[in-house]
Amino acid sequence: MGTARRVLPAGGLTSAHIQPEPMVHSDQRVTFRIAAPEAASVQVVPRGDDNGMGPGPYPMKKEEEGVWRVTIGPVRPGFHYYEFCVDGARCLHPHAEVYWGWGQAVGGVEVPDPELDFYDPKDVPHGELRLHRYHSRITDTLRRVIVYTPPGYDRDGAACPVLYLQHGAGESERCWSWQGKANFILDNLLAEGHARPMLVVMANGYAARPGAADPGRPSREENAFEEVVVKELVPRIDDRYRTVADRQSRAIAGLSMGAGQALRIGLGHPEVFGSVGAFSGGGRDFDPATSYGGVLADPDRAAEQFRLLWLGCGRQDRLYDGARGMHETLEATGIKHGWFECDGAHEWQVWRKCLRQFAPLLFSE
Amino acid sequence: MGTARRVLPAGGLTSAHIQPEPMVHSDQRVTFRIAAPEAASVQVVPRGDDNGMGPGPYPMKKEEEGVWRVTIGPVRPGFHYYEFCVDGARCLHPHAEVYWGWGQAVGGVEVPDPELDFYDPKDVPHGELRLHRYHSRITDTLRRVIVYTPPGYDRDGAACPVLYLQHGAGESERCWSWQGKANFILDNLLAEGHARPMLVVMANGYAARPGAADPGRPSREENAFEEVVVKELVPRIDDRYRTVADRQSRAIAGLSMGAGQALRIGLGHPEVFGSVGAFSGGGRDFDPATSYGGVLADPDRAAEQFRLLWLGCGRQDRLYDGARGMHETLEATGIKHGWFECDGAHEWQVWRKCLRQFAPLLFSE
Repeated sequence: MGTARRVLPAGGLTSAHIQPEPMVHSDQRVTFRIAAPEAASVQVVPRGDDNGMGPGPYPMKKEEEGVWRVTIGPVRPGFHYYEFCVDGARCLHPHAEVYWGWGQAVGGVEVPDPELDFYDPKDVPHGELRLHRYHSRITDTLRRVIVYTPPGYDRDGAACPVLYLQHGAGESERCWSWQGKANFILDNLLAEGHARPMLVVMANGYAARPGAADPGRPSREENAFEEVVVKELVPRIDDRYRTVADRQSRAIAGLSMGAGQALRIGLGHPEVFGSVGAFSGGGRDFDPATSYGGVLADPDRAAEQFRLLWLGCGRQDRLYDGARGMHETLEATGIKHGWFECDGAHEWQVWRKCLRQFAPLLFSE
Repeated sequence: MGTARRVLPAGGLTSAHIQPEPMVHSDQRVTFRIAAPEAASVQVVPRGDDNGMGPGPYPMKKEEEGVWRVTIGPVRPGFHYYEFCVDGARCLHPHAEVYWGWGQAVGGVEVPDPELDFYDPKDVPHGELRLHRYHSRITDTLRRVIVYTPPGYDRDGAACPVLYLQHGAGESERCWSWQGKANFILDNLLAEGHARPMLVVMANGYAARPGAADPGRPSREENAFEEVVVKELVPRIDDRYRTVADRQSRAIAGLSMGAGQALRIGLGHPEVFGSVGAFSGGGRDFDPATSYGGVLADPDRAAEQFRLLWLGCGRQDRLYDGARGMHETLEATGIKHGWFECDGAHEWQVWRKCLRQFAPLLFSE
């Protein structure tokens, strides 16, 4: 990896073309620029306390013709959220990529890792990302689901197993494809024969019941996501797509908030899901005897029920101790599971690596 | 229409949830707000000289706790581009919808028309929007195409005719679905039985040859879009989708720059396309004897070759005279065609109406 890399320009969220800002240099420093001729103070503000750009904020300096500039780094490889602050206004640059995170539109910078290319768009067959909409009777809204279909899905008669893959708090159904590059990770794994062709269903983890105080980010009590998954989404996907509609061919995984959802929904519904993955989340106060309705209390029965129970976390993640604690408890009580750790914080680069480790283990014979 | 409207919240480009800014009032006034505690001057800047918000810029007034505010309007119903200007910095609000237009990420405000609901997301079956990627040998990039598949496409064995639908200058393959709501327009027409089920293929009209000076917006000479459509896209769609692969079941239409492309590519390739639509563009200096290689020179032969030749334009559009001129010339020379005009400028509300008029006429027996 890392040599003779052949990456195709793939564009961003809003445009098929690469946006020119910010400039990422080959030494992993990043230069931000913004025109603000009359501003008194402009900064780049990384979002999150363990952002790979460092904590910031980074004051910019006014240079030629009202353009402010700052070069930071070297920045940790991966994807990092940021915004600009112009005289106190948090805002986005019209010539930079726009993502969704922190419950808002937000900037994001992608710093290539010279050692890694498993998530790059390469000259291999590409699956499709389908925006599927349906009227949810539970939320009474038009819900959006993004479904990755593997290359050849439309031509092959074969039914596919399904991975349900969840984003983190403040993110959306788009994040696993845009920030996470899940589609390119799967494309590349499939091209190398390292994973079984599968559908990846990416739903919005917020599913506010009608009348919820904050429909965009409902409280846990007002969030009907578990009900939506089990009663609406799984039956709908099985009805509309060519799936292997049995629990052994159905997995659920997620990151951070989505990891907690995957554990609760997956382990809480063994009649629906046969495999569960938790990336950088869940595990706090885990007790095999009582957690998740005690479904893991009997190690033999757990191994029989769940083909794959898998945990992953970055070693510099603030949630590492919780995840590692769950792994150690599973280990100590002899409950079969997978564990993966790597350098990294609470960030997309770790979750990309988790997906790359996790997906090949799914749906094996 | 307009009574007992049942519209489902459908979310925006980046999020499944409606963004709270700006606020659109029932009297069609719009209130913009942005926090900029230390700014000296903040404006809302409509983009385009016949913007339905009026020309602007609209100075905002600093009110409580550093929040600037302005209420404008009533604003013309439809979709209008805008951005904020904070002490000279053109920027986007993180809590407002983000679109792509003018060759950049840009704000957009949607003002409902109390008289119209044909483009609203309703409780009807919804087609899918598929993001299809492929490696173009012509541009040597990973090109993105968005393909609308009608409800039931995956279950019905029937092959579909195909409409190729192009955006305007500075826009992208996403615009017909996000700004234009083409998918909802088709969903609604199909639910009412007013159109034949069809695929709608939305490609990026910029296809820079390798080495082009501006890959995002290549010059006409460096833009290989015609070649991409004829040599790559049409064969690929026919190969990967269940299409009726003949010219009579293939149409091309577009708006503004895309109207010119539709006329040139459609009329220039009668072996590929049997129907052509031009919304608010093309037609300048049209001469039936010589334009488009003289393909329309013989009215009988033109009517035989092109099942549908269709022009539409807003009466307040700066390109109206050109479009109307082409219509009158076609009329005078007895060349069979369709013509539609309505109130409106060079704006999405007109193009939505064009699509609604045009689509039902396509692929009829």
